[in-house]
Amino acid sequence: MSEADWHATRPGEVEGGDPARADASVAFIGRIRTPFATRAECPHRGRVDGPDCHIDIDAPWRPALRGIAAGDRLEVLYWMHLARRDLLVQVPKGRGAMGTFALRSPNRPNPIATSIVDVVAVDEAGVTVRGLDCVDGTPLVDLKPARAA
Amino acid sequence: MSEADWHATRPGEVEGGDPARADASVAFIGRIRTPFATRAECPHRGRVDGPDCHIDIDAPWRPALRGIAAGDRLEVLYWMHLARRDLLVQVPKGRGAMGTFALRSPNRPNPIATSIVDVVAVDEAGVTVRGLDCVDGTPLVDLKPARAA
Repeated sequence: MSEADWHATRPGEVEGGDPARADASVAFIGRIRTPFATRAECPHRGRVDGPDCHIDIDAPWRPALRGIAAGDRLEVLYWMHLARRDLLVQVPKGRGAMGTFALRSPNRPNPIATSIVDVVAVDEAGVTVRGLDCVDGTPLVDLKPARAA
Repeated sequence: MSEADWHATRPGEVEGGDPARADASVAFIGRIRTPFATRAECPHRGRVDGPDCHIDIDAPWRPALRGIAAGDRLEVLYWMHLARRDLLVQVPKGRGAMGTFALRSPNRPNPIATSIVDVVAVDEAGVTVRGLDCVDGTPLVDLKPARAA
């Protein structure tokens, strides 16, 4: 599937929102390195038995890693930089039309994903984790301990 | 506790990061109405048997609610507009120093919280939910279905 196909609007989809709204700024605090070079290669959902991925933390924020250890379960927030922000109703393949807030699609007004991962190892520049499904080079927004189940 | 006290840096805490970094913009797509007028009144953690809160969706994004119904479990992302963004190591009350990425503290480089809520009711302007712990007026960033447990 080409980049153009990813961005095509399907019959039944509704565009809208307010693209002029920029109320706050996000800092990209690192990058996520995965084996998935393109969106076509990304699994539909991350699995904790999936491949190792490395979360590179940019130098200014590395002191914030203190206390994270192998075996921890983290919540990862990242910015889906390839997504559309103007789709309000979407038609996922093989399903009917659904509002964006009723879907976990990458296309959303603020394209921020949340994933739960297991920490495999910690090094001075970041963490190795399992459970991600995003494309290589995805910008990192936040890391925090997963909620207790 | 005064606003000044909320923002004081405690012994052992480390400030840093890169406040100049603004790599992407977030649109505030609504506001969260809670019974908690100040941070001192907020519970430490939201509970699904807590009070009803209303998530007001701004008009341009309301079509994205299609398909959400009472009984759904949603993940809510919101912007903790009162938080500090420069704390890398924090000393929570009664605990030792911990990196920000090892804490769910509101103070973090990108102050985005995630909460799981139960939908009580849906109306044309938003959703009534239980499970939030944020201050009244908190800006909304995203709504999506909670992951399957």
